[in-house]
Amino acid sequence: MADLATTDTAPVDPANWTCPAPLRDQPVVVMGHGGGGALSAELIEQVFAPAYGNPTLAALTDSAVLGLGGTRLAFSTDSYVVRPLFFPGGSLGDLAVNGTVNDLAMSGARPTHLSAAFILEEGVELAVVERVARALGDAARAAGVTIATGDTKVVESGHGDGVYVTTAGVGLVPEGVDIRPQRARPGDAVLVSGPIGQHGVAVLSVREGLEFGVEITSDTAPLADLVAAMLAVTPDLHVLRDPTRGGLGASLNEIARASGTGVRLRERAVPVPDEVANACGFLGLDPLYVANEGRLVAFVPPEHAEAVLAAMRAHPQGTGAALIGECVAEHPGMVVVATGLGGTRVLDLPLGEQLPRIC
Amino acid sequence: MADLATTDTAPVDPANWTCPAPLRDQPVVVMGHGGGGALSAELIEQVFAPAYGNPTLAALTDSAVLGLGGTRLAFSTDSYVVRPLFFPGGSLGDLAVNGTVNDLAMSGARPTHLSAAFILEEGVELAVVERVARALGDAARAAGVTIATGDTKVVESGHGDGVYVTTAGVGLVPEGVDIRPQRARPGDAVLVSGPIGQHGVAVLSVREGLEFGVEITSDTAPLADLVAAMLAVTPDLHVLRDPTRGGLGASLNEIARASGTGVRLRERAVPVPDEVANACGFLGLDPLYVANEGRLVAFVPPEHAEAVLAAMRAHPQGTGAALIGECVAEHPGMVVVATGLGGTRVLDLPLGEQLPRIC
Repeated sequence: MADLATTDTAPVDPANWTCPAPLRDQPVVVMGHGGGGALSAELIEQVFAPAYGNPTLAALTDSAVLGLGGTRLAFSTDSYVVRPLFFPGGSLGDLAVNGTVNDLAMSGARPTHLSAAFILEEGVELAVVERVARALGDAARAAGVTIATGDTKVVESGHGDGVYVTTAGVGLVPEGVDIRPQRARPGDAVLVSGPIGQHGVAVLSVREGLEFGVEITSDTAPLADLVAAMLAVTPDLHVLRDPTRGGLGASLNEIARASGTGVRLRERAVPVPDEVANACGFLGLDPLYVANEGRLVAFVPPEHAEAVLAAMRAHPQGTGAALIGECVAEHPGMVVVATGLGGTRVLDLPLGEQLPRIC
Repeated sequence: MADLATTDTAPVDPANWTCPAPLRDQPVVVMGHGGGGALSAELIEQVFAPAYGNPTLAALTDSAVLGLGGTRLAFSTDSYVVRPLFFPGGSLGDLAVNGTVNDLAMSGARPTHLSAAFILEEGVELAVVERVARALGDAARAAGVTIATGDTKVVESGHGDGVYVTTAGVGLVPEGVDIRPQRARPGDAVLVSGPIGQHGVAVLSVREGLEFGVEITSDTAPLADLVAAMLAVTPDLHVLRDPTRGGLGASLNEIARASGTGVRLRERAVPVPDEVANACGFLGLDPLYVANEGRLVAFVPPEHAEAVLAAMRAHPQGTGAALIGECVAEHPGMVVVATGLGGTRVLDLPLGEQLPRIC
């Protein structure tokens, strides 16, 4: 079994492990543990990886790649607890398909099958369950995947929130493709497939009843076809990542840390829609940390950057693609932003999340 | 793609579908929808299958078998919402591994990898999360599978119940093996791998603070190795099923319906431990409908029955194996029990569940 989702960290000895700060300082789970930032990473590194005895846990990749029966199988899972269930541009059902499909696509895999496990709260209307299921089915058809198996559990009223869905997915990684955060190299071009921040702001706006003059819709979309178009240019893409929880800031930090390289971002090159920028300004959010559900960031060898960017822009999911920075040998493990005013600032890994339950 | 988990039902036309009784009569989710009985089946057949546009949804099998890259991949998922998290003989972590491993094994697959997605309730102690994670890791090692990927979400206090875990699993189905409910044939011997009813009664006893003079422990165990021992006798096992929610009664009904055969059960041959029989008598439960988490039922061609039974009894997970009945041409789709007093009774599919949240 060749598990490509390895990290270079030393294995943790479960026998000698003690819970470190800041986990030790707060002995209970807080919302930030689900936010995709430093607290989430700590939970994986300090609780799950030692418990599973698996230092190669795909903690820093979106999916594991397994050698199985002569194939390379990508395998990924996510639970979806977004509230509200329906929001401008999408729904829980869309996220549950696109989120897992995209996690598979970020290893270069062609997703083929999903599982869907529902945790229903007693008393939720069957019409709501059916609406979620239909959205899930429609999104699966749009993404070209089959929902092959599933499960339903019911919990008492007051122990759920209507509908939670957990999907897992499988797909095959093509021959010659090896995409993972550890492969980022100084010189790589950093590309993003389109404007950022829409999903998180869309969910927040409907949850909080906020209006920003113009409706901001989620960007939720399946990205496997876009990835296939990029791989048609060159199989040698180094890193792909969909910046969901924690946004672009968290994704770039994870890549910098996993690869031991630095990332230099040009702030003015990052596409942020005016309405997202305005909403973030109003709410005190940094769009670089807001979740996206239909965008990817790519680290591409410089000699292929122009052609890959052109292929992205020619694809419906990549019309707004942009070159936003590069991978550098300086400040290894850190992300530095060149600001519009000519200065620089460090873009750190967020601790928790700005917006809980956005996926 | 050869999805072997097909059923013979006609595809449902989503456009012309209306919610049928009894779903129509109760427009909200009730606990019974998660019980593995008639209400669960109705939810799958009337809501999920039409929504997914997938009449071949693995509704009546424990796992889907997918043709993928020249291999036959078994793929399955279950959410685990058992309460309490720890009970005599096991825990949520054990169930989350063994339940999914066993679903894969019921297609004859050798399980290799699991995913584990946690939905944590804000405020739950990290020590509890860690204890669940360690149980999960220990159970995975015992079952010979790797936890390859995972996810963590956090929901606000009052929207969860400490820890929910959803696992999905993959494994390869050996060449020449084709195990599914539709393959039951009149003449098949019906075997069970050991005494039934322990898991459900164990969970209930600790949940309700009941004592029955002797501690009843859950039978939770991984069964893939037992299945491999049975397949070593003959690859031509017809049906395997782990009678979890809904117990032996639900499993036998599902097999009878899927295959269009009848099942004749000899009540006196079904191994029910005295303490389980006593507890069920006290509580008014039928042990045939109580959940098991480490038992399987097998439909085996008569010429192989004796040898398969011997192989089961020689395996640590099958020491209590017994021949409990046979598959017949009469009363197709129905399960009939020959009672100890010489009469017969119909063993129907339960509507909901006797014990909610037992897995």
